[in-house]
Formats: sequence, C-alpha cells, structure tokens
Amino acid sequence: MEVIKSNKNTKIKEWIKLKAAKGRKKARQYMIEGEHLVEEAINHHADIDKVVVTDEKLDQYRSLLFPYESDMVVVNDSVMKSLCETQANQGIAAIINMPDRSSEVKEFDGKVLLVDAVQDPGNLGTIIRTADAAGFSAVVLGEGTVDLYNDKVLRSMQGSNYHLPIVHANLVEWITTYQEKGLPVFAAALDEQAKDYQVIAGIENQAIIVGNEGQGINPDILSITKNKIMIPIYGEAESLNVSIAASLLMYKAQEKKG
Amino acid sequence: MEVIKSNKNTKIKEWIKLKAAKGRKKARQYMIEGEHLVEEAINHHADIDKVVVTDEKLDQYRSLLFPYESDMVVVNDSVMKSLCETQANQGIAAIINMPDRSSEVKEFDGKVLLVDAVQDPGNLGTIIRTADAAGFSAVVLGEGTVDLYNDKVLRSMQGSNYHLPIVHANLVEWITTYQEKGLPVFAAALDEQAKDYQVIAGIENQAIIVGNEGQGINPDILSITKNKIMIPIYGEAESLNVSIAASLLMYKAQEKKG
Repeated sequence: MEVIKSNKNTKIKEWIKLKAAKGRKKARQYMIEGEHLVEEAINHHADIDKVVVTDEKLDQYRSLLFPYESDMVVVNDSVMKSLCETQANQGIAAIINMPDRSSEVKEFDGKVLLVDAVQDPGNLGTIIRTADAAGFSAVVLGEGTVDLYNDKVLRSMQGSNYHLPIVHANLVEWITTYQEKGLPVFAAALDEQAKDYQVIAGIENQAIIVGNEGQGINPDILSITKNKIMIPIYGEAESLNVSIAASLLMYKAQEKKG
Repeated sequence: MEVIKSNKNTKIKEWIKLKAAKGRKKARQYMIEGEHLVEEAINHHADIDKVVVTDEKLDQYRSLLFPYESDMVVVNDSVMKSLCETQANQGIAAIINMPDRSSEVKEFDGKVLLVDAVQDPGNLGTIIRTADAAGFSAVVLGEGTVDLYNDKVLRSMQGSNYHLPIVHANLVEWITTYQEKGLPVFAAALDEQAKDYQVIAGIENQAIIVGNEGQGINPDILSITKNKIMIPIYGEAESLNVSIAASLLMYKAQEKKG
C-alpha cells in the first residue's frame, strides 16, 4: 500500500495522461472509475496494475480491495478529483493493463458485430453493452472507431468489455476472409437492394456491420459485402441512431426464424 | 430584420435564459441550433418566433429563411457563440414558441410509449426519435422526466418532436384511464412474472412503459399495470440501456404476430 497526497507526484502525472487516447496507447494502460466498473474488472480478472482509493472511502471498499492490498494506492480527495473525469467521483478507480487481442481476430464462431468508424463514445459503449446482452460472440472495431478505453465508452459499456472479446481489425480484410469461408456478412444500409432485416433471424454464424453516425458504412467495405439489409422506418424520422440500429439487428439475429 | 451586435442586448440576455429549463418554462419558448433542426422546424410549421443568423452565414441561409425575413435577427459570431451550446455552431438558430399540448393527453389510437422519469437527455431524445421511426402515435412523458426542450434532447430527437405528439401527463392516471377502456399496457420489468417481449408483436392498440435508468419503473406505476414483459439477456450484461430497451420493444410492437 502506497499513500500519495500530491497532484505533482510522478505516478499521478502519468495516470492523468491516460485520459487521452495517445497516453493510453503509449502506456498500454487505461483507467476506470467508480465502484461498479472496478468491481466488474475484479470479477472478470482484468489485469489490474493499481487500485486507487481515497482515504475517506478506504474502509467502505476494504473487503472489495482486500486481494489488491499490495497494489493499492491511497490518495486524498484532491488527487482523486484530478484523476477522475466524472464530477462526482466515488472515491475509487483502477489502472488496468490493456489486453493484447491482436491474435484473436479471425477465430470467431457465432455472431459477430463489425463496427466501422463509430465516433460517439456513448454509441460505441452502448453497442458493446448490447452485443453482450444479445449474446454476440465478439465485436470487431474497424479503423476510425473511437478509442475503446475512452472514459465515456467505459462508462457506457458497464463492464461488458470483460464479457466478450473486442478486437481491432481491418474490416475489408476481415470480411473477405469471413466470406471466403462461406459465411454471411450483412451490412445495414439504406440501399434499394437492401432486404428487410427479418432475413437475419436465426442464422447461427453471421457477421453484421454498422457504420459511422453521419456517413454510414465506408463504400470500400460496403462494396465487398454481399448482403445488404435495412430496418424499416414507419414514421417520418430520416434514420435511426447507430446504437439503436445495431441493437435491433443483434436482437433480430438472435431470434428464431419466424 | 433586426441587427444585434452585443451580448448585453436585452433580447440576447432573455434568450440565454432559455438554456435553463426554468427559463424555458417561464418564457414558454425554447431555442434550437443548427441547420438541420431549423429546417425541420420550418418544414413542420413550428411556431417560430425568431430566426437568428450570423452576418457571415446570412447569404448561405437566405433562401431557407426567406419567409421569415420580418422575424430575422442578424448577429455577429460572438453573440451566436454566447447563445449556442455546441462549441462549433453552424451560425443559425431559432427561438420557438412551445406548443400547448395539455389537451391532447387522452385521445390516442395506435401505439403509445410512456416514459417514466428517464433522466439522461441523450436517452430521451433517442427514444423519441425511435418512437417516430417505429411509427408510434404518441409519447407521454411522466413526472421526473428530463425537460423535452433541453438542448441535448433536441439534438438527439433530430426533429422528431415535430413528427408525433409528445405530451406530459400523470402516468398513474393515464394508465388507469387507458386500461379502463380495455386496452393493454405493457411495463418493461425484470420480474419473475414478466413474459417474453415477443407477446406484444402485432397488437394494434397498446401502450408500453419504460422507466428510469437506475431505478426502473416507479412501483406506484408498476403495481397498477396489468402486463409485465421482459427482453431476454443472452450474455453477461446485467441490463440494457433504456433507449435500447424502448427501441426493441417499439419495433417488436410494430411487427406482425409471429
């Protein structure tokens, strides 16, 4: 157990850098805040480097943090405030070593969600949380997608990043390999040839692509994808939010064939 | 056409007050920002009090704003910045008189979504946008729900507030009246007696309730609601985001009976 009372401490300065994607990439670490996310990390055996707790909350979290006593850093309120992104922090955080997931890329059975350049952290987090709920096997993040360890993504994921593999890949290559195996890939697109999304119900092995909030799926990806599907719009809205579209598709894929 | 070049102008000071729910309630007006939302308001004949445009963007928006020339206020960049919530504003905004919707409360055919105390503006906006897309007849907001004219709600709704009626009501009273007519109300709840949400498919007239992000549906509302339904969780996630749950339910309600 270590005690740090100053924002100018070298470790604190290093951890503050984890707030930016660049800092996380360099350190290969990310930071989580709040009891629920720390508990999820512990329960799912995340590679925890340090747990950080305020002196005030030490007693409250003692049993939760007991196995991590040698990796515990106790700070005061002011240090915790400079570490945390949320205005009302819960006095608990953790520094986690990023898993290396590059080798897991092409080995998926079941249902896989492909995410092309989704930009909003809340959308990405919600998509991953719903992929978990819908029983998907994995999520593949293409280039241009917001950083997985952004604090808003972490908050929206609610720990689902520990429940299913999430990998980075070049989606053109990934889709090409997957389709060569004879497996179907479905792209959500507002296209005249697109079929109603009911067609994906009950297909055991399949991949579904969703795209950027404003631009949709990148044309290079769309052009190689064999199946286009669409969710009907019954009212006057022009489109659906991407996390809503992804969720409707994933739950539809998990349904029995009607 | 009026030209305002100072943040200290009385009108500008009044409009800045519209950023807070209290100011909107008092003035019975709200403010929208950006080309898309102003265009939606114009196309749907919202009760526009003023359109505000920067001198720089006046030419670009001239044809869109032509019918509103007598209600136009031209401002400089600095005034527009103090009016707008978004960091990169598009040089266009509008002040809109709130519709009076209290009389519309109990006259709904079709499918109605009831929202109990949803707190996050992004969630509420996305729910209303999806209610529009899913062809719902109306949305009823219960007490404790975030203000409809919050700027984040407005941005997430994408203009759907002009596409379907959105009213405020006491949900206990609303549900009681609706059930007395023999119509079914479904509450999304993690309850042992809850049925799989597939049961709502194809029911022409029905109401669906979704609840607060942390607490779910208020027990007073839940206890009078005859039908409980649930969306299955296939993975390890503990729950779904409320906008995702609402969307899955609304699209399911719109499906044909399987």
